[in-house]
Amino acid sequence: MKIYDAEGFPNPARVRIALAEKGATDKVQFIPVDVMGGEHRTDAFRAKNPDAVVPCLELDDGMHISQCDAIIEYIDGSFDGPSLTGKAPKDRARIAMMNLRAENGLLNAVGAYFHHATPGLGPDLETDQCVEWGNRQKRVAGDTMAYLDKVLEKDEFLAGEAFSVADITAFAGLAFADFAKVDIPESLTHLRAWRDRIAERPSVAD
Amino acid sequence: MKIYDAEGFPNPARVRIALAEKGATDKVQFIPVDVMGGEHRTDAFRAKNPDAVVPCLELDDGMHISQCDAIIEYIDGSFDGPSLTGKAPKDRARIAMMNLRAENGLLNAVGAYFHHATPGLGPDLETDQCVEWGNRQKRVAGDTMAYLDKVLEKDEFLAGEAFSVADITAFAGLAFADFAKVDIPESLTHLRAWRDRIAERPSVAD
Repeated sequence: MKIYDAEGFPNPARVRIALAEKGATDKVQFIPVDVMGGEHRTDAFRAKNPDAVVPCLELDDGMHISQCDAIIEYIDGSFDGPSLTGKAPKDRARIAMMNLRAENGLLNAVGAYFHHATPGLGPDLETDQCVEWGNRQKRVAGDTMAYLDKVLEKDEFLAGEAFSVADITAFAGLAFADFAKVDIPESLTHLRAWRDRIAERPSVAD
Repeated sequence: MKIYDAEGFPNPARVRIALAEKGATDKVQFIPVDVMGGEHRTDAFRAKNPDAVVPCLELDDGMHISQCDAIIEYIDGSFDGPSLTGKAPKDRARIAMMNLRAENGLLNAVGAYFHHATPGLGPDLETDQCVEWGNRQKRVAGDTMAYLDKVLEKDEFLAGEAFSVADITAFAGLAFADFAKVDIPESLTHLRAWRDRIAERPSVAD
């Protein structure tokens, strides 16, 4: 299988961490997409992924899967190793809930701020900004950080006792926040300690 | 188990259709939430669901699950009947991808238009509007309708040969579009024919 992506970008990073957690990084051929050059918006790339974003998974039969959560669902179901999305319905639901909160409230909120209310990827790519929306989403990201800190006061990971895709998504969200200069307040000690623990995992550190 | 919701609203409808597809509607106690009166934003409700939206699932052990996709994941895994989220990794990934496209590109886009660029639920509830964003999301919804029409030119359902959660989400999105007076163009004949087929399913019609 192939993954079209751009190393270092937040959503590609989620998929790469998931692959490393499953010990499956070497099962994939990575094909670089020139995001800064706008390759993801060409007709050739849209034929693979009409969402016009990276990453995009290409299966050996030619089917394309986009949307990070769908790609990670495929990876989790296809390779051995600890489950990232849960097994029992209750665990799966809790992980899905926390993953969506981290995704919409943190990662995508930081992304909206970055792309709409800062120079983002530059004037050639940021052609449709809505500054007011971007600034609101920065506040949403801050609120979500405070919420996640409370969750991590009680639990080691975002969906309880086991590392999951929710942790991957939130970690990518905090990394994006750092990059976009969105403060992670010093007072959120549980969130910051969790981030340090996640950063030491081989799937992230190596 | 209990579901806190408000009958007739788009996201509660998704969960009710999923329950009916699994033949499990009578396994659930529905507890009405006075959304028009702002009950979903009270501290008492936020203690159940910090997202402050309906629906919210309460399990018999007291755990709360919010986010529609997570609730439907729980329902699909807990009750017999045809799978709504897929079994094999490839099917699960395809369904998840199409569900997210329908959710972000149609249902949530129509919701953003309704809540931000129309009177929405009225001045007491719509206290944080961003009109420019709402109008952009109306265009996103239109683009997504055109995309879904192309998908349905080839396939009977949004994720292939079987009805899935992606169909539930897109159907709720079109119903919301009708309510919010967002046009579903006459030219999108495959999408309109699909909508008529879905509307006839007992889970929707009854």
